[in-house]
Amino acid sequence: MRILISNVTYLESAVSQDSLNPVDIGIEDGKISFIQEHLPSRDQKTHLKEAAWDRVIEGRGRLALPGLVNAHTHLGMTLLRGYGDDLPLMVWLQEKMWPIEDQLTEKDVYWSSLLAIGEMLRGGITTCADMYFHMGATAKAVAEAGIRASLTRGVQDVGGSGLRGLEEAIGFCQKWQGAANGRITTMLGAHAPYTCTPGLLRKVADWANRLGVPIHTHVAETSTEVHQIKEQYGVTPLGMLAGNGVLDVPVTAVHCVHLEEDDLELATQRGVRVVHCPGSNMKLGSGIAPLPEMLATGLIVGLGTDSAASNNKLDLWEEMRLASLIHKANMQDATVIPAVTALKMATCHGAAALHLDKVGKLAPGWVADLVLVNTEGLHWQPPSNPQASIVYAGGRNDVSLVMVDGCIVYDQGELLTIDEDEVIYHVKKIAHRLGLL
Amino acid sequence: MRILISNVTYLESAVSQDSLNPVDIGIEDGKISFIQEHLPSRDQKTHLKEAAWDRVIEGRGRLALPGLVNAHTHLGMTLLRGYGDDLPLMVWLQEKMWPIEDQLTEKDVYWSSLLAIGEMLRGGITTCADMYFHMGATAKAVAEAGIRASLTRGVQDVGGSGLRGLEEAIGFCQKWQGAANGRITTMLGAHAPYTCTPGLLRKVADWANRLGVPIHTHVAETSTEVHQIKEQYGVTPLGMLAGNGVLDVPVTAVHCVHLEEDDLELATQRGVRVVHCPGSNMKLGSGIAPLPEMLATGLIVGLGTDSAASNNKLDLWEEMRLASLIHKANMQDATVIPAVTALKMATCHGAAALHLDKVGKLAPGWVADLVLVNTEGLHWQPPSNPQASIVYAGGRNDVSLVMVDGCIVYDQGELLTIDEDEVIYHVKKIAHRLGLL
Repeated sequence: MRILISNVTYLESAVSQDSLNPVDIGIEDGKISFIQEHLPSRDQKTHLKEAAWDRVIEGRGRLALPGLVNAHTHLGMTLLRGYGDDLPLMVWLQEKMWPIEDQLTEKDVYWSSLLAIGEMLRGGITTCADMYFHMGATAKAVAEAGIRASLTRGVQDVGGSGLRGLEEAIGFCQKWQGAANGRITTMLGAHAPYTCTPGLLRKVADWANRLGVPIHTHVAETSTEVHQIKEQYGVTPLGMLAGNGVLDVPVTAVHCVHLEEDDLELATQRGVRVVHCPGSNMKLGSGIAPLPEMLATGLIVGLGTDSAASNNKLDLWEEMRLASLIHKANMQDATVIPAVTALKMATCHGAAALHLDKVGKLAPGWVADLVLVNTEGLHWQPPSNPQASIVYAGGRNDVSLVMVDGCIVYDQGELLTIDEDEVIYHVKKIAHRLGLL
Repeated sequence: MRILISNVTYLESAVSQDSLNPVDIGIEDGKISFIQEHLPSRDQKTHLKEAAWDRVIEGRGRLALPGLVNAHTHLGMTLLRGYGDDLPLMVWLQEKMWPIEDQLTEKDVYWSSLLAIGEMLRGGITTCADMYFHMGATAKAVAEAGIRASLTRGVQDVGGSGLRGLEEAIGFCQKWQGAANGRITTMLGAHAPYTCTPGLLRKVADWANRLGVPIHTHVAETSTEVHQIKEQYGVTPLGMLAGNGVLDVPVTAVHCVHLEEDDLELATQRGVRVVHCPGSNMKLGSGIAPLPEMLATGLIVGLGTDSAASNNKLDLWEEMRLASLIHKANMQDATVIPAVTALKMATCHGAAALHLDKVGKLAPGWVADLVLVNTEGLHWQPPSNPQASIVYAGGRNDVSLVMVDGCIVYDQGELLTIDEDEVIYHVKKIAHRLGLL
């Protein structure tokens, strides 16, 4: 499929103001083949003639952005949206989530994943990272629905040995790495320092090294976790991961709400990639991550929604806005996390946090994951500052077209790869069975 | 106009779970005349027959909510959206806002107000409170566009005596109080303790008493303000207002970010109504208001967006979500400001914060300001918990119909009272003249 987006304004990676003149973007074989200044049609070169393309998309009144990267979520938990709100984290986890998760079947996770992917695509998210179980079902949903995903079968020792889980996780990586034309990549997952024994962590690190995949893990989400790990092991959660070889391979460390100064140094030295989940951290009362400090040390930080059970939306526009606002409030400094920084976290830095190559930027040779945004609504007026409008005034409903890997998956209000009615039918049926409705 | 909304689920004021069975809502003469259980048509009483109504709206798949109340904004500043982001408050105010505000004409404020009202109506805001200048232009826009508004011509001594402004403000109240079928109410406005002399405050209080209108004022927005007022007068900003008679009349006190313990007691004793503006307070780096403490003392607190220059959206759904999330994060307690509390702040408590009667609730005899919300989108699934979904998962784009004072002003994507293209044309023209584009 060869697609030309004609006469569109664009932000390469949200960095510069000078790229706001209209351009033509060529897309061939799932990649961006060129971006060049738009010229009136009579002057256009042969390769821009309409007939040369399978489809020409008129870009006037639209802003092209790299597709957004949701660098941490749990798609299988989307079923649990609205089940357990305004509760303390441990009550939420132990009395609500864990008992009901025990009842989830592979099919449940499949429909929950499709529900999540549909919501994400509609909002311009073209890449997500998931850690959960029944991951084969999620991989199937990802393959069908056309999103890009970094998938992890999480392992932990709570409720038994993690070895069976690890075996499954290894098999999952071997089966799915590079599937769906490369849209699917995999990681090994250690759930968290407080749910994995040192022995399990060492095995996960060893296998990640052998398989050549990164490790996806939660770290220092709550102060309770930090206290517990310090008491048990005499080091911080990140220190505990380091001590068991987890930082010897590429790592995606999620949350990092309660990193200490030494942790920041350690993370920087070891090239840890961080995922910040402001919405979930706020809603669960986990606290406020030291994002300005992390960025100051040069850490690469992406954004994640976490699951719909703790957010409750899978909306990267919200996370951009929250990431900017919460730290301005917390530091009482309006200059902290400016719009451009939030935009980078949601795009190129999110992809880098997942160790993905050539994802998250609109540039020749990079994957054609992109979003067209309708900037004609009242809430975009006057259009003084596009970056600020994206982060502070816009929203996911402004997304008018979504492309992943060169394929259009959402266009003018319609998902082209997912039958929404069918998904809602199954989700409601499962929710009834689980006693959620 | 007699309108029947048939077979709709509803939340009276977002308080109870037990009102989720479908109802019929009758609207006559701008008021809600009845709400009763929906019965299959063959059993319906005569007054529910379709022919008896000017219009019957099918409510299936919709949730009826009281219209949202944006209890503090500056409509005339919507033109300045995206002009001065990520800047410290005093730079933002002194180098960006004040110089350009000097150039705003009455016509500019008119178009800016229509732009703001259009954005608000689309998002389900049926009442707003505005404090600005050229208020006649804003009142005209309010009258035409069909929103409910509490309007205040702000006064201050910065850059000259506030007496000329006060005279204008008094004239404005006399002319507009009760206009547009009662949709327009007025207040007197003292801008803030740091911009008004004690003499001016006493005059404002005296005139508010004579006119029988409340006072709308900013209080304790920043720690700088608190330090300055303490140094100058030896009391807190709220104490300074109290000392000059401002709390002797009904007051709407906006921001209250840096209230001290004695202030909380004073505010409670004097029945001060508070407006919390989390988005603006966060974006300007002003800090985090003691909302949980305010609510614990029994204070009535509404929500406001503040202006689009400091937010940058006029979106009460965002403010609900922020009001809930920021305090959970700040207190590290997920039980703080549950969804229901945020919903009350956005509806009935917002109206009470503006001293409005019979506004902000769906109940017989109350004004027919209501919103129908489409709950069929993927992000509402599964529909386990409507209150949580409204605050944590929903958004302003889910609004499908808006009614103010019994009149439908927005229906299925279209504003019925505002020519959006005309507004955008004028806003862009003004933005060019001001050098914003």
